Amino acid sequence: MTPNDTYSQLSQKLREISVLGSCAAVLGWDEQTYMPPNGGAFRGEQMGLLAKLCHEQFTAPEIGDSLSTLEGSDLVSDPDSVISANVRELRRSYSRATKIPSRLVSEMARVTTLAQGEWRNARQKNDFSLFQPWLEQVLNLKREEADIVGYTEHRYDALLDEYEPGMTAARLKVMFADLAKNLVPIIQAIQNSKQKPNSEILHRNYPIELQKAFAESAAKQIGYDFESGRLDVTAHPFCTGIGPGDCRITTRYNANFFNESFFGVLHEAGHGLYEQGLPADSFGLPTGSACSLGVHESQSRFWENQVGRSRIYWEMLFPKAQLHFSNSLGETNRDDFYFAINEVKPSFIRVEADEATYNLHIILRFELELALLAGELEVKDLPQVWKDRFTQLFGITPPDDKLGCLQDVHWSMGGLGYFPTYTLGNLYSAQLMNAAQTQLGNLNELILKGDFVPLREWLREKIHIHGKRYTAERLIQNAVGEAPNSTAFVEYLKGKYQPLYQF
Amino acid sequence: MTPNDTYSQLSQKLREISVLGSCAAVLGWDEQTYMPPNGGAFRGEQMGLLAKLCHEQFTAPEIGDSLSTLEGSDLVSDPDSVISANVRELRRSYSRATKIPSRLVSEMARVTTLAQGEWRNARQKNDFSLFQPWLEQVLNLKREEADIVGYTEHRYDALLDEYEPGMTAARLKVMFADLAKNLVPIIQAIQNSKQKPNSEILHRNYPIELQKAFAESAAKQIGYDFESGRLDVTAHPFCTGIGPGDCRITTRYNANFFNESFFGVLHEAGHGLYEQGLPADSFGLPTGSACSLGVHESQSRFWENQVGRSRIYWEMLFPKAQLHFSNSLGETNRDDFYFAINEVKPSFIRVEADEATYNLHIILRFELELALLAGELEVKDLPQVWKDRFTQLFGITPPDDKLGCLQDVHWSMGGLGYFPTYTLGNLYSAQLMNAAQTQLGNLNELILKGDFVPLREWLREKIHIHGKRYTAERLIQNAVGEAPNSTAFVEYLKGKYQPLYQF
Repeated sequence: MTPNDTYSQLSQKLREISVLGSCAAVLGWDEQTYMPPNGGAFRGEQMGLLAKLCHEQFTAPEIGDSLSTLEGSDLVSDPDSVISANVRELRRSYSRATKIPSRLVSEMARVTTLAQGEWRNARQKNDFSLFQPWLEQVLNLKREEADIVGYTEHRYDALLDEYEPGMTAARLKVMFADLAKNLVPIIQAIQNSKQKPNSEILHRNYPIELQKAFAESAAKQIGYDFESGRLDVTAHPFCTGIGPGDCRITTRYNANFFNESFFGVLHEAGHGLYEQGLPADSFGLPTGSACSLGVHESQSRFWENQVGRSRIYWEMLFPKAQLHFSNSLGETNRDDFYFAINEVKPSFIRVEADEATYNLHIILRFELELALLAGELEVKDLPQVWKDRFTQLFGITPPDDKLGCLQDVHWSMGGLGYFPTYTLGNLYSAQLMNAAQTQLGNLNELILKGDFVPLREWLREKIHIHGKRYTAERLIQNAVGEAPNSTAFVEYLKGKYQPLYQF
Repeated sequence: MTPNDTYSQLSQKLREISVLGSCAAVLGWDEQTYMPPNGGAFRGEQMGLLAKLCHEQFTAPEIGDSLSTLEGSDLVSDPDSVISANVRELRRSYSRATKIPSRLVSEMARVTTLAQGEWRNARQKNDFSLFQPWLEQVLNLKREEADIVGYTEHRYDALLDEYEPGMTAARLKVMFADLAKNLVPIIQAIQNSKQKPNSEILHRNYPIELQKAFAESAAKQIGYDFESGRLDVTAHPFCTGIGPGDCRITTRYNANFFNESFFGVLHEAGHGLYEQGLPADSFGLPTGSACSLGVHESQSRFWENQVGRSRIYWEMLFPKAQLHFSNSLGETNRDDFYFAINEVKPSFIRVEADEATYNLHIILRFELELALLAGELEVKDLPQVWKDRFTQLFGITPPDDKLGCLQDVHWSMGGLGYFPTYTLGNLYSAQLMNAAQTQLGNLNELILKGDFVPLREWLREKIHIHGKRYTAERLIQNAVGEAPNSTAFVEYLKGKYQPLYQF
């Protein structure tokens, strides 16, 4: 068999594994949307079996053998070729998947399932001590996982690598320190400002059917393809890319809060545009999959915030919003609306945070995760350390753990190393918007006309079609001409908030 | 390994195969309900892979070895035990699945996919010659399949066995001849009657939202569990049993025709009650699966017709229907409504047929399938033979093939031997109703009170919980005290139509 045959056989096998995995994506979507209540136990059995089969097939020795053959062949002589990228990324995930013993996989599944239940219980009762032993167990398992996977510098890197390949704790520390240094004074200036938006505007009555139609039309306008997707209602909004021609998004509606569904739908549609823009013929291969969670988040934040919360976007859309929600917005001034959707207000809960304070929530979690993994912070001390550091960063102190270290589900699920990708997405999105403005030249004119085709095509060409061909760092570098950093994001915030809050 | 170990290992493996198959059931449901239009091609790939994996796993030599071990063990000494039934039925399907070469399986898949497209085209253009070569190909493949599977008497038996295990063409011939002999004079008497229902009643405006609520409440009343199921809209209504706790039904609404969704929902809910009544702990084993297509249809027809079109049922429900559809039924007489939903009128299209003429449509198809398979009828002669025989049976002649031999999708899909199960379901349902009346004693009183629990429990105990433990013939015999036959059904029709049409 020639290396070309090996590569094509391997590609086919991987497509098959991904097709099998995509069945779980349909089942997962169904579970959140339409599955009858009593279907839960059996759904768990279905999902467990699909996960087992996918894992078995992906960790089969033949996959490793094929990779070794290809690694020793001429096919990877150009390190930047598609084939090289696929071999490199497959080796990375194959190595991770085969290193971790199945004992650890099932123990992790068992502990995190129980830990999620205990976390829910602890949060409800506002009693961290109930969750503490479970978080300790999760932490020990994640330490074990990191040590098995291996790392050069910091144990954290082994976990981060699963979500943002190539990124390291050391680089994040530098980037996040820089970000925090700039964010804190901006937020302080805003808090000291006498200017306040009239946020009541957003809490008027927005009938759900009208919200649905408006959000759908906005998603359609930016190019989310409803022939290859759909929008449903779930308790927790998400986007799921099932496969070529099928990527679905969800939202939740609040009849008395405009932002919840509107910006939620733009966010998920941004994820959806990325999935819909991946090269369909590479489905199942790394070059047909999203680059990293940070890059994925950059796409959602791009449309939600860089576009969706911009002045120019509402110059185009506000007249339509006034007609559509005439009872609530008919008499409202566009500038007041624009200020309201850009309110900055430190609060305890991450998922409710504005664009500026959001990243402080992430930085806090990143610091704590680092310390926990390194053994520099004990789980029992987490609640107090959280409060202290929160106060330093935000200037306000969480009154309890429910509004503090018990608010997120992530740790109970074993998702350590995941949080930083949210902020990376924000940073990338600002860099991308700068580059798009420069490279397209007339972006504001296009947005005013409601023509998003050039912008979407630009993102497609710069980001979507490459899949995992480059690491996130190189992908962003290629697209915007500089390495990931926080400067563009900080400038973006200043440019937006200085005129609004007049500091 | 003891035979007990072998049995428990085999049971576990079969559960796993069925869990995998059940993923395809979710995907199939999704395909008909919510899948975005562009998801079709990829969905085909997912379904194809799941089918391939299930087939591979089920035809693995280890399954055959386990069956051989069990067949030679004490575990099957009682031929009526659950274990014996499972071994017997697994051998039947294992033997069928392993005998048919994969070449034939893929050729059948290829030809029937194309044939369905050509059938659609031919039907639309009302041109049988376009479909003829495809039907010839399908027929040849089905002949080959039957010859490979093997049979004692008639090639038809090998195909019928897949849908109604144990049933034979010879037995059907006798039963159906008897049925036709009795049906034709009843239908003639009805056609000669001066009594005609006022069918306009059913074609008034029935707002879809109201229909939905009414049908759901009727399905709930007979015991279909919406915590373990749901009702959606599809082009072609169906019921799909995904697994324990999850069995879904669909319908379609016509704002100007009451019957379409109401009796459709009762029909599918009848199928659903059967699936919901199968023993959950035997999921994946024959004793946890429906007995046969005929028995499945008996459950849907039982609720749709034996209950849902009975006088006593509408004595209970009509006052509610009048309140619910006050604009359309407020002034309508209950007897007129009852007559309208029981109208008999020979027509060309099977799926629109009433209870009496429906079975003549089936008998016609059964006779033609027999002749085609035996080589006594050539495909090219089908249109004329259809018209001739239709005229003999119904007294009217289809004006064209669209209203004749081009109306059903079944043959293009390779579904030869399937049609008779529809009529078997009708016959079984009448026998079951007789037995329920006798054994419960006060069934009419219960229905008048809207209390369907005893009737549902009776069906559960007599039919549902047994799965494939007995053949359909023995299951019916055990439940009603006599072998399947057409007498009860003919008496049922006479008892209903003589008073209405006064013959």
